[in-house]
Amino acid sequence: MTAADLAPRILEGDRRALARAITLVESGRADHRAQAAELLDTLAGVGRQALRIGLSGTPGVGKSTFIEAFGLRLTGQGLRVAVLAVDPSSARSGGSILGDKTRMEQLSRDPNAFIRPSPSQTHLGGVARRTREAVSLCEAAQFDVVLIETVGVGQSETLVAEMVDLFVLLMAPGGGDELQGVKRGIMEMADIILVNKADGDLKPAAMRTVADYAGALHLLRKRPQDPEGFPKALPVSALSQDGLDKAWEEMTALADWRRAQGHFETRRAEQARHWFEAEVREGLLARLREDPQIRAQMQALGTAVAEGDSAPAAAAARMLALLRD
Amino acid sequence: MTAADLAPRILEGDRRALARAITLVESGRADHRAQAAELLDTLAGVGRQALRIGLSGTPGVGKSTFIEAFGLRLTGQGLRVAVLAVDPSSARSGGSILGDKTRMEQLSRDPNAFIRPSPSQTHLGGVARRTREAVSLCEAAQFDVVLIETVGVGQSETLVAEMVDLFVLLMAPGGGDELQGVKRGIMEMADIILVNKADGDLKPAAMRTVADYAGALHLLRKRPQDPEGFPKALPVSALSQDGLDKAWEEMTALADWRRAQGHFETRRAEQARHWFEAEVREGLLARLREDPQIRAQMQALGTAVAEGDSAPAAAAARMLALLRD
Repeated sequence: MTAADLAPRILEGDRRALARAITLVESGRADHRAQAAELLDTLAGVGRQALRIGLSGTPGVGKSTFIEAFGLRLTGQGLRVAVLAVDPSSARSGGSILGDKTRMEQLSRDPNAFIRPSPSQTHLGGVARRTREAVSLCEAAQFDVVLIETVGVGQSETLVAEMVDLFVLLMAPGGGDELQGVKRGIMEMADIILVNKADGDLKPAAMRTVADYAGALHLLRKRPQDPEGFPKALPVSALSQDGLDKAWEEMTALADWRRAQGHFETRRAEQARHWFEAEVREGLLARLREDPQIRAQMQALGTAVAEGDSAPAAAAARMLALLRD
Repeated sequence: MTAADLAPRILEGDRRALARAITLVESGRADHRAQAAELLDTLAGVGRQALRIGLSGTPGVGKSTFIEAFGLRLTGQGLRVAVLAVDPSSARSGGSILGDKTRMEQLSRDPNAFIRPSPSQTHLGGVARRTREAVSLCEAAQFDVVLIETVGVGQSETLVAEMVDLFVLLMAPGGGDELQGVKRGIMEMADIILVNKADGDLKPAAMRTVADYAGALHLLRKRPQDPEGFPKALPVSALSQDGLDKAWEEMTALADWRRAQGHFETRRAEQARHWFEAEVREGLLARLREDPQIRAQMQALGTAVAEGDSAPAAAAARMLALLRD
């Protein structure tokens, strides 16, 4: 099946075609990259404008259970939901060792859902590119909601924040953010903090945690893209399903407000510009790696540096002068 | 005082001249950068080969108290000790709000010690460059030991691991590494884990923690640069000073073994090569930002992308083609 064959099938929402297209996007092979570029070009500007939601949470907060319950809630309303996992390490970490589809068994069988496990062994720069392209493909495939999932401990949250419309942080009851292993900067990215496990014995603790985070969020400076009351903290229970509808209401209310105020489009425009700049940067560096002459010169100077015949900064200055000429 | 005046004074071990030189290195001003480059060039290859030690630990483990006690121990043996703080955020975080010199009061008054607080507001790439250059300057200024301190929660540990000979992780008794906010990857970088506060009531907990980490380290795959028994976990008490001599013995034993096996020089050579490559990369990107024509083209294409007239990847391909011609 060629890229040209894939395009119409993706536009019809065919999940197998979408999966194949994402595999092309993830591939390191030059011919696959070329096919992916052609496909993305064909599909540019068509398809739906999905609501792109970043969802971050450390292992143990019940992220898979939440996505399963929340995703089924949305598909139950007739929405088409795609879930993309981002962290290159998540395949190795405890939570998802069995694979993302096993983690979200019911959702993965839902015809209105699409779950894409994170590829192993991708470097962070590659992750950003692949994920942005996968989001474009999901929109072409008529998905209404694209959930991009990260594990809340690394750099991938920053990358994801640069490609989503909303950022949601899932927490467990109790403990400060440090105890839960969430970096402070991640909390500050959140539009909505959901405290999961607000059920049974843990409910009082969850409500206290909601109050704690609501207090903490209140201390953050209000951003122009936030309506009154945002960012906010809410209790949810993936188990009892309490609060899931409310969480979705808040997400759509926030997105609608931002659309009405023009923040939504402004943000997407900025994100597209950043993406463009990142691609140029990456492309330049790739050229450096691929040109045999440049590579040979880098090699020779690198060896001189490694053997102590030249200082790193001085050798770099020489290389930059060579590249200029 | 010009860069030419600074060089001989640095070589004599003058701490004020060293401090001024590091200020040049940290500056964003082009004339300062040029002076710094000239100075580094003058000093290249002279001075001592210090033992470069990365020291990471989250706030609360007693890092300042440890560095103070450990540093005084080394200066008491006639060694000259420099302490460089890395994290751009540490100036804002609780532990060091009073400044690094206040944190390590006695050590900062020791004529054989040099303490450099972390500069605020530096981006991570800049941190790497500044720190590498500051290490070179400390070596030129005849320091025997350069301790590079990080807070154990961010990306700076990876950067620091790329510029040190040994990596030491300081922990508090009790809790797993997640509870202490140390990322898993950081533990795996450690050559030596020191469990601090092994004194008084906390001693039994500290000994248990040492045993836990020793067990965990045992599970990690042995690296070629590790002699038998490394990486290892040891108890220390900055308060009672117990274990500090032992910790230093283990560090020097490890460094000596690596020197004898050739790993020490191999690693320094690789680090120098990486530094060179990073400088070339950064220099190329800076050129992109500084050339007015290129900037104008980037601006025009970026606007087209932001306005939806062009797909990011397609615009990037066009820009790269322009740059090639």
